[in-house]
Amino acid sequence: MLLQTSGPSRTRIFSLLHQCRLASSKPRFDYDLVVLGGGSAGLACAKEAVDCGARVLCFDYVKPTPVGTKWGLGGTCVNVGCIPKKLMHQASLLGEAVHEAVAYGWNVNDKNIRPDWCKLVRSVQNHIKSVNWVTRVDLRDKKVEYVNSMGAFVDGHTIEYVPKSGQAKSRVTAKNVVVAVGGRPRYPSIPGATEFGITSDDIFSYDREPGRTLVVGAGYVGLECACFLKGLGYDPTVMVRSIVLRGFDRQMSELLAAMMSERGISFLETTIPSSVERQSDGRLLVRFRNTTTQTDGSDVFDTVLWAIGRRGLIEDLNLEAAGVKTQNDKIVVDRSEATNVPHIFAVGDIVYGRPELTPVAILAGRLLARRLFAGSTQLMDYADVATTVFTPLEYACVGMSEETAIEKHGADNIEVFHGYYKPTEFFIPQKSVRFCYLKAVAEIAGDQKILGLHYMGPVAGEVIQGFAAALKSGLTVKTLLNTVGIHPTTAEEFTRLSITKRSGRDPTPASCCS
Amino acid sequence: MLLQTSGPSRTRIFSLLHQCRLASSKPRFDYDLVVLGGGSAGLACAKEAVDCGARVLCFDYVKPTPVGTKWGLGGTCVNVGCIPKKLMHQASLLGEAVHEAVAYGWNVNDKNIRPDWCKLVRSVQNHIKSVNWVTRVDLRDKKVEYVNSMGAFVDGHTIEYVPKSGQAKSRVTAKNVVVAVGGRPRYPSIPGATEFGITSDDIFSYDREPGRTLVVGAGYVGLECACFLKGLGYDPTVMVRSIVLRGFDRQMSELLAAMMSERGISFLETTIPSSVERQSDGRLLVRFRNTTTQTDGSDVFDTVLWAIGRRGLIEDLNLEAAGVKTQNDKIVVDRSEATNVPHIFAVGDIVYGRPELTPVAILAGRLLARRLFAGSTQLMDYADVATTVFTPLEYACVGMSEETAIEKHGADNIEVFHGYYKPTEFFIPQKSVRFCYLKAVAEIAGDQKILGLHYMGPVAGEVIQGFAAALKSGLTVKTLLNTVGIHPTTAEEFTRLSITKRSGRDPTPASCCS
Repeated sequence: MLLQTSGPSRTRIFSLLHQCRLASSKPRFDYDLVVLGGGSAGLACAKEAVDCGARVLCFDYVKPTPVGTKWGLGGTCVNVGCIPKKLMHQASLLGEAVHEAVAYGWNVNDKNIRPDWCKLVRSVQNHIKSVNWVTRVDLRDKKVEYVNSMGAFVDGHTIEYVPKSGQAKSRVTAKNVVVAVGGRPRYPSIPGATEFGITSDDIFSYDREPGRTLVVGAGYVGLECACFLKGLGYDPTVMVRSIVLRGFDRQMSELLAAMMSERGISFLETTIPSSVERQSDGRLLVRFRNTTTQTDGSDVFDTVLWAIGRRGLIEDLNLEAAGVKTQNDKIVVDRSEATNVPHIFAVGDIVYGRPELTPVAILAGRLLARRLFAGSTQLMDYADVATTVFTPLEYACVGMSEETAIEKHGADNIEVFHGYYKPTEFFIPQKSVRFCYLKAVAEIAGDQKILGLHYMGPVAGEVIQGFAAALKSGLTVKTLLNTVGIHPTTAEEFTRLSITKRSGRDPTPASCCS
Repeated sequence: MLLQTSGPSRTRIFSLLHQCRLASSKPRFDYDLVVLGGGSAGLACAKEAVDCGARVLCFDYVKPTPVGTKWGLGGTCVNVGCIPKKLMHQASLLGEAVHEAVAYGWNVNDKNIRPDWCKLVRSVQNHIKSVNWVTRVDLRDKKVEYVNSMGAFVDGHTIEYVPKSGQAKSRVTAKNVVVAVGGRPRYPSIPGATEFGITSDDIFSYDREPGRTLVVGAGYVGLECACFLKGLGYDPTVMVRSIVLRGFDRQMSELLAAMMSERGISFLETTIPSSVERQSDGRLLVRFRNTTTQTDGSDVFDTVLWAIGRRGLIEDLNLEAAGVKTQNDKIVVDRSEATNVPHIFAVGDIVYGRPELTPVAILAGRLLARRLFAGSTQLMDYADVATTVFTPLEYACVGMSEETAIEKHGADNIEVFHGYYKPTEFFIPQKSVRFCYLKAVAEIAGDQKILGLHYMGPVAGEVIQGFAAALKSGLTVKTLLNTVGIHPTTAEEFTRLSITKRSGRDPTPASCCS
């Protein structure tokens, strides 16, 4: 428990004890903690460690992308992830809102409206720079030392780096090291990939309109990029190697793809790229192969965006010198975030087999610092982490997919409640309600403990967050249906779920408000 | 438990038994159930009763307002409540969205945009009529008999009414009667009130622009009306007799009023109206008295809207003939919705001392039908009902206000966690974040069971609904802070609450994403 209470908290007492301990002997190491990586995980860990009385140094360095994009302090989320993505998503939703405003009676000319891509990028980048700045000030206020350089292991306790000013390498020693260097988008190994393609690292600062864009990859990054490009008036095509949204609930993933198709986004199914060439007119000729029909094809695009996954940035860390175990390009840790070397830890996207999500990284980093420097024993709880795909109808979920629930409990032991619904606001602008759908996956017995919740519709992240807290509190179907709705919202539809898949009854709603 | 399971459910079995029972003897009464009132409560009860095998008749009749407004089947929510209110609210938000779209780079001319009030009213009314129609069809499908007439008691089992076609009064007998006639807005007893003023019963179908509007009353109806009028470009003034949002958390209520002031809505504090006269130019001269300064004043408005509370519609029911006990203008019921006359029940807004909310009415009506006709014993749980005020920053809450928690537990035994936050989307259009605030009221001891949650910001209803389910599941602060956030959302701010009021620390956020 790390809450601020009336008396000194347990954390604070531990911190004071720790500071006394630190003061009483000349330290063996320059720092109690060196953090490699100034993203969400690293910064959260570094700041919390300082709060707990530790001497902390944090390294952060961004290697430019093949086309030269680079950015400031704060890591993926702030610079090339959640934040710019959400802003582009919002921009795309606002374009839709202009048309809706007209339907509601506003005297706006919504014919042929277009966004000014460069203005949007400028606004997004200005916001990012302000966050970089606030992050920097925050580190200074919290007295976290920060070096804008790449740190690498010399041995398990020694980190070497090139100072920004000088040429000669410097070294620092640390009692503990936290690796939080995160990941970067992968490129395929085909001709032209790095020369002519970009990734999500580049798109949010792209200095010209993307135009007709091939998005290669149908994970959430690819789908989100395709959707905001479509919403901003461009013409994206999504190339899918096997399935969309691998790892998510299949029914919801298919619904999401269908929703995108309804909005005019094209899909190239079971297709892999073969090469990218620049034509004499400057456009990009992409050759590809459909692995089902075994036929080759090609098409011309203005932009090719790789969204085929992300790799961990272990390459420059010289992990061998510290003897840290890796798997693929990630670091293997135990439940306490420790690598095979007990005083070396890893948090965030660099960790093997954990959800690559900012709030996971932040909480894991913070809890690690409290365990290291404040006597806490609390481990990060990776169960029932909610997430959202920011497509125009958003998809959010928490807990198990239907497939996982069946696999773990058996089809006979789970009950799936589901329903389509019609958001009140959709009627006047006659927005499609075809894909407004939600379901609850529950145990069939007793009070029917809920295993997973899935929602597609407006503001899905806002809707699911509270239900994530409910799941962590042991939500059952009995409690859910006894929860009084807030009318009219879309979230209340969860409290009205009465139709099971097993019943075969029509999950389409009839009446409203009775 | 009324869930659809693989075998026949308990409800279904009871229904079948009941139907057998009904079939085996000639009924003493024309109907098993007569429902007075075709609003949310009455219709939900009637439909569920038919589902359980009962013979049901439902009366619904709408008396026109003083200015002649009337409407169709479905009650307050559909016709003059939640639904048109939410649509007007949405229209007002979309006006704001047009300006935001420009900030994000859309080439829209947002200078001097105005809504077409008549087009908006037409759209809203068209939607309402479609809901009336769907409601009617739903009743027909579900085989609920319906009479568009006012039913009144002759005795406890006999209801008299005037059929639409004929002149002669008709009578029906019923084994059980459910009174669900709801309420209507009050008018003050001052000169000109009914001649020149309107209420929320009229505003959603008002055939001319409201213009400069005096909203008398600062309950949620008054504040919501003032806010959508402001958002639509009119100029509302709110007259407050004593305090805004009586019954809600004081701090949040004051914040909400301050948020409205920031948006240019005027308040006449501690003021009561004295008279309304029509001037020769057609505008309305309102005289009023400030009860603090004991001074009189007057001002001229285009529209005067009374939002001073609602009364129960008991006047035409001839309740005395049935011996049903009332209090003020409402009906007194016990925990099973029964009046002092055991076979006469009341649900919805006509009930004394219950929350006047559609989903409460629906669930109470439905559960009552199951108890009457399907052997259920489940009572309506009125605890922790969430609600939302649909102002431009919405305010939603569930559970106790800070005052109630202090009153019930003592100030020393509660801990209030709070924080301001900055929605990511607000930065680019530079929207004010001054009133983006949330708090959790919790027990101070142990895992800190949460007693109440309060949130002001975008889509508050969507945010709070899941947390309402969490509260019903026993949410604690410990669990809340172990819940991983969904980034970037505003709902995730609940999982980041770390500052207590008691600590005196600054609840303003510093960093984002770490």
